[in-house]
Amino acid sequence: MTLLDSLKWRYATKKMNGQKVPQEKLDYILEAARYAPSSSGLQPYKIFVISDKKKLEQIREIAFNQSQITDCSHLFVWAAWDSYSADRVGEVLLRTSRERGLPDKSAEDYKNSLLSIYEPLGKEWQADRCARQAYISFGMAIAAAAEQKVDATPMEGFDNAKLDEFLGLNALGLKSVVILPIGYRDEANDWLVNLKKWRTPKEEFVMFLD
Amino acid sequence: MTLLDSLKWRYATKKMNGQKVPQEKLDYILEAARYAPSSSGLQPYKIFVISDKKKLEQIREIAFNQSQITDCSHLFVWAAWDSYSADRVGEVLLRTSRERGLPDKSAEDYKNSLLSIYEPLGKEWQADRCARQAYISFGMAIAAAAEQKVDATPMEGFDNAKLDEFLGLNALGLKSVVILPIGYRDEANDWLVNLKKWRTPKEEFVMFLD
Repeated sequence: MTLLDSLKWRYATKKMNGQKVPQEKLDYILEAARYAPSSSGLQPYKIFVISDKKKLEQIREIAFNQSQITDCSHLFVWAAWDSYSADRVGEVLLRTSRERGLPDKSAEDYKNSLLSIYEPLGKEWQADRCARQAYISFGMAIAAAAEQKVDATPMEGFDNAKLDEFLGLNALGLKSVVILPIGYRDEANDWLVNLKKWRTPKEEFVMFLD
Repeated sequence: MTLLDSLKWRYATKKMNGQKVPQEKLDYILEAARYAPSSSGLQPYKIFVISDKKKLEQIREIAFNQSQITDCSHLFVWAAWDSYSADRVGEVLLRTSRERGLPDKSAEDYKNSLLSIYEPLGKEWQADRCARQAYISFGMAIAAAAEQKVDATPMEGFDNAKLDEFLGLNALGLKSVVILPIGYRDEANDWLVNLKKWRTPKEEFVMFLD
């Protein structure tokens, strides 16, 4: 299945049936999320995977009671850095440099140049920029799930502060960004499953300027 | 090629060779970008496609002189809504409802419920939320290009205000978010092409909480 076929097949599943997604499919989806590009390759986010029923019930409460959270197989939570610190940026760049057989100095110089851009923009800007990177990875996971014929429901609708607290993210310098229940559609009970997908027509969506 | 293979194949191309990408591949990449999911299906962004050499030279100047902008085949620019207005949200929801054979009233109710959430959060929050959606589409275009063995360089490094002005985006209520030169790598002159890709190891990237 091509990427475009996968995107046409998927939809924001409204009702899931509780069936478990096999570990190899989960691993594939998480690998696609891990290989997503990010600004300067910093990958300023992690993914938390939750499958414990009790935890999911508690998260459902802080996500406007959406049923997919307890009917899914696994819930993925993207949690992004709350800021670009010298330590974090430096560590990623150093590991990348070493993997590439480049001198440590090249990572150091790059780190200093990035921080000279990021620092004056403030922590709020930095957290937002990190969160934006997470959306690319989120998209890759959605596409990868569809490629594996696994359903998923992209969600922004939850209380971020409460989820941060529930997962202990503050202590890790992370902030929840988006969540993705992964599982299988309950065809008989999903009101959206048979409705047409609508997208802005091509000629309105793309502006060719030459 | 699977999505994961595509993601492993791609890299942020540093030097392009000027070769043109065939129209059918461009169309495919843009379709994948168009089919990206977005919050409530609003697709709060458009893509501008620029190939005119003179325009690209001017954009290169407002993008820190990055050579891919003039050596690419086409430059894609994601421009997101500067806010969620009742008109914009209403139009998309109404067209979606009609495509699905649902009563107009259902779109109206959904519109009102979304606006009651978005309006108190202010225009800056709204612009940011729209921009975040564009990152999902941006990711899909990057993956679709790789699937077509077309190179691309994801870029956030440009002067947004200047690009908005150059493309006349303010008058359209849009703001530039990210840009993507699409083309082919110049293997002999690209310093990054043969360096290893590095990603945070799986066990540090994914936290299984059960």
